[in-house]
Amino acid sequence: MATVKMVGEADATGEVRSIYDDIKQTRSISYVPNIWRTLATHPPTLKRIWLGIKSVMAPGRLDPLTKEMVAIAVSATNSCDYCIRSHTAAARKLGMDDEMLGELMAVVGMFNQTNSVANGYQIEVDEQYISTG
Amino acid sequence: MATVKMVGEADATGEVRSIYDDIKQTRSISYVPNIWRTLATHPPTLKRIWLGIKSVMAPGRLDPLTKEMVAIAVSATNSCDYCIRSHTAAARKLGMDDEMLGELMAVVGMFNQTNSVANGYQIEVDEQYISTG
Amino acid sequence: MATVKMVGEADATGEVRSIYDDIKQTRSISYVPNIWRTLATHPPTLKRIWLGIKSVMAPGRLDPLTKEMVAIAVSATNSCDYCIRSHTAAARKLGMDDEMLGELMAVVGMFNQTNSVANGYQIEVDEQYISTG
Amino acid sequence: MATVKMVGEADATGEVRSIYDDIKQTRSISYVPNIWRTLATHPPTLKRIWLGIKSVMAPGRLDPLTKEMVAIAVSATNSCDYCIRSHTAAARKLGMDDEMLGELMAVVGMFNQTNSVANGYQIEVDEQYISTG
Amino acid sequence: MATVKMVGEADATGEVRSIYDDIKQTRSISYVPNIWRTLATHPPTLKRIWLGIKSVMAPGRLDPLTKEMVAIAVSATNSCDYCIRSHTAAARKLGMDDEMLGELMAVVGMFNQTNSVANGYQIEVDEQYISTG
Amino acid sequence: MATVKMVGEADATGEVRSIYDDIKQTRSISYVPNIWRTLATHPPTLKRIWLGIKSVMAPGRLDPLTKEMVAIAVSATNSCDYCIRSHTAAARKLGMDDEMLGELMAVVGMFNQTNSVANGYQIEVDEQYISTG
Repeated sequence: MATVKMVGEADATGEVRSIYDDIKQTRSISYVPNIWRTLATHPPTLKRIWLGIKSVMAPGRLDPLTKEMVAIAVSATNSCDYCIRSHTAAARKLGMDDEMLGELMAVVGMFNQTNSVANGYQIEVDEQYISTG
Repeated sequence: MATVKMVGEADATGEVRSIYDDIKQTRSISYVPNIWRTLATHPPTLKRIWLGIKSVMAPGRLDPLTKEMVAIAVSATNSCDYCIRSHTAAARKLGMDDEMLGELMAVVGMFNQTNSVANGYQIEVDEQYISTG
Repeated sequence: MATVKMVGEADATGEVRSIYDDIKQTRSISYVPNIWRTLATHPPTLKRIWLGIKSVMAPGRLDPLTKEMVAIAVSATNSCDYCIRSHTAAARKLGMDDEMLGELMAVVGMFNQTNSVANGYQIEVDEQYISTG
Repeated sequence: MATVKMVGEADATGEVRSIYDDIKQTRSISYVPNIWRTLATHPPTLKRIWLGIKSVMAPGRLDPLTKEMVAIAVSATNSCDYCIRSHTAAARKLGMDDEMLGELMAVVGMFNQTNSVANGYQIEVDEQYISTG
Repeated sequence: MATVKMVGEADATGEVRSIYDDIKQTRSISYVPNIWRTLATHPPTLKRIWLGIKSVMAPGRLDPLTKEMVAIAVSATNSCDYCIRSHTAAARKLGMDDEMLGELMAVVGMFNQTNSVANGYQIEVDEQYISTG
Repeated sequence: MATVKMVGEADATGEVRSIYDDIKQTRSISYVPNIWRTLATHPPTLKRIWLGIKSVMAPGRLDPLTKEMVAIAVSATNSCDYCIRSHTAAARKLGMDDEMLGELMAVVGMFNQTNSVANGYQIEVDEQYISTG
C-alpha cells in the first residue's frame, strides 16, 4: 500500500470528485487508478499533474501510442514499476503488440548500454553534432 | 578528450577498418564519429555494438525516427551529453523539427516527474494493469 | 529476503551487539531494522555507515525533519523502496503530515521533470549562475 | 549551446513575452534564464512548466529555501549540471551558506550511498515501516 | 508476472529452442531463467543479447567473478531487482562469500555517495586526471 | 569551478591540514585533488568521507584495482564526470590498460542494457535466484 491513505471514490468531494470524473471519462475507464487516488491526498498536485498529462498526451505531432512508448522507455530507465505497468497497459490498448514492445525494449536496452559506455569513456561530442536544429 | 587514445581513420586496419567503412556507408557520412573511434580501442566491443545498433535501428514495426526519439528520451533521463547530441542530430536528419522535439521533451519531462512521484508514494500497481498482453 | 542471512539480535556479539544497542537507544525503538541486521554481515560497514548516519542526521544548520525529507527526495529519485519506506516512517515520527509530504512530492516530481528537460535540450548554464557562493 | 535556437527577449511576442515578463518580475531578475528561452521554442511547455514551478515553489508548509535544497538534492542525484547551478544560485539568494550546503551534501551523499546498498542487498521492508501515515 | 507471456520450454521451436539449449548447457543449469523466456517473445533480441552476454562474460583480462561483481554494482546502482538477484546468485556460484559481497557493497555505496557529492558541488576535473591512458 | 570556494593548501589549518597531508602521503601525490579541497569547506564531511574511502579502498578480499574498476562502473552508470576521470586515473596507475578498460566497459554497458530490459518487461525473479547465500 502507498505511504498515504488514498482517497476512495466515495470520499471524493468538490474538485477532487470533478477530476475523478474527468479521469474516468477521458480514459473511458470505470475506476480511478491508484496514482490519482494517491495524489488526491494533495489536491493541487492532483489537479496540476492530471491537467498536465491530459495536455501532454493529447494527439499532436507525435501520436498517442508513440508517447506511451516513450513513457515506457523513461519508466524502464528509471525503474518505476507502477509506471511501467500503467504505460504498458495504455500502449497495449492503443495497439502495441509483443513485436512492437520487443523492438521498443531493444532500443531502450541498446541506448542504456551506449549511454553508460559513452559516459564511461568520457567521449567528446563531435563538432558535427553541435547544432541548434 | 576521451579516457583512451582514439583510433584515427589512418590507423585503422583489418576488421576495424571494415567497420569504419561500414559506418560511413550506412550512415552516409564522410567521417567516423568519436564513439566508434573510441570503441575501436577494444575491437570486439566495436564490432558487437556497431552490429547491434545497425540491427536495432533498422526499420521494423517502429520507424527509425521513432527509435531515435526513444533514444533521446533514454539519454535525457540518463544525462548522457554525447548521446543526447548524437541522437538529436540523427533525429533532425530524419525530419524532427522544434515542435516535435518540444512534444518529446514534454513527454520525457512529464514521466520523469510521475516516475519519481509514483516511487515516492510507493503506489501499488492496480490489478487492471497486470497482464501479459 | 535479503541476499545474505541477516544477523539476528540473539546472534549479535561484540561490536555488532554494541551497535545494535546504540541503534535501539538512539532511535528509541525496541527492534533492530533489517538494514542494520543485513549490514552486520560485514561489521566494518555496519559500523562505518551507522556512525556516519548518526553524525549526518544529528541536528545542525538543517533540522532533522528537513534531513529526512531530503532523504525521501533522494530515495524517490533512485527508486529505493526500502529507503523510501524507512525515511517516510522517520519523517512521520518527526511531524510530517500528508500535506507536507504532498508539497515534498510536488517539488521532487517537478525537478525530476526539469532535470530531464534541461539535460535533454543541453541547456547551457547562465553566467549569472556561476559562482562559488 | 542548446539543441534548439533559443528565443531571445527581442523575439518574444504574445504569450511568450508575457511569461518572460512574469519570470523577470517574479524572480526579481533583469534577464530571462536560458531554460525559459529554450522552452519558449515550445510555448505550451514553457507555460505549463513555468506556471507549475511558480505554484510548486510558492511558500506553503515547506519554506522556499527548503524547497530549493530539495531541488539541489534531486539534481545532484540525477547529474543535471544546469539544474544544480541554478538551484544552488537560488538557494544562495535565500540564505544558504557553505555550512548549510555542506550539511545538505552530506545528507545527499549518505542516502545515495544507503540507497545503493539497500537495493544491492535486496533488504526487505520492516513491517514497522509499512503505514499510510 | 512479466508484461508479456513468456515462451515456455515446451513451446520453443527453431532458433529459440537452440538458444534455450545453449543457455542450459553454457550455464550448466536444468531450466531456462525468466529473462530468456521473456526475451524469446522477440527472437532477434533474445539472440543478440544472449550471444552478447556469452561473449562479454567469457574469461578475458577480467575473470568471470570480477565481471559478475561489476554486474551487481551496476544493477544495485540502477535498482534492478531481477538483475541484482541473478548476478548475486551467479557470483555466489563462482565463490563470492558474505565478506566479499560486504566489501563490494561498501565500494558501491561509497561511490554512489561521492558521485552525488561531486556532481552536487560541480567539482572541476583536476588536470592531472585528464589523460588518454 | 565548484559551487563553493575551495580551500587551498595554503589556507588549510588544523584538522583540514592534517587530512590534506594524509591524502598526499597515502596517495603518493604532491597536490590535493579538487574533491578534497571542496569537501574542506565542510570539515566534518571531509574527514568522514576521506577516512571512509581510505578504509573501503584498502586491500581486503577484493584487490585495489578491482575496487577502482567497480568505482568506474558505478560512476559511468551515474554519469559523474569527475568520478569517472579520477577513478580511471587511479585504475591506470594500478595497471589497468586499454584492453582491461574495454572489457570493463563491455560489462558495464551490457548490464545497463539488461537492467533496463528486465525492468521494462517487469520480469519476475526466478525462485532459483532467491537465497541468502
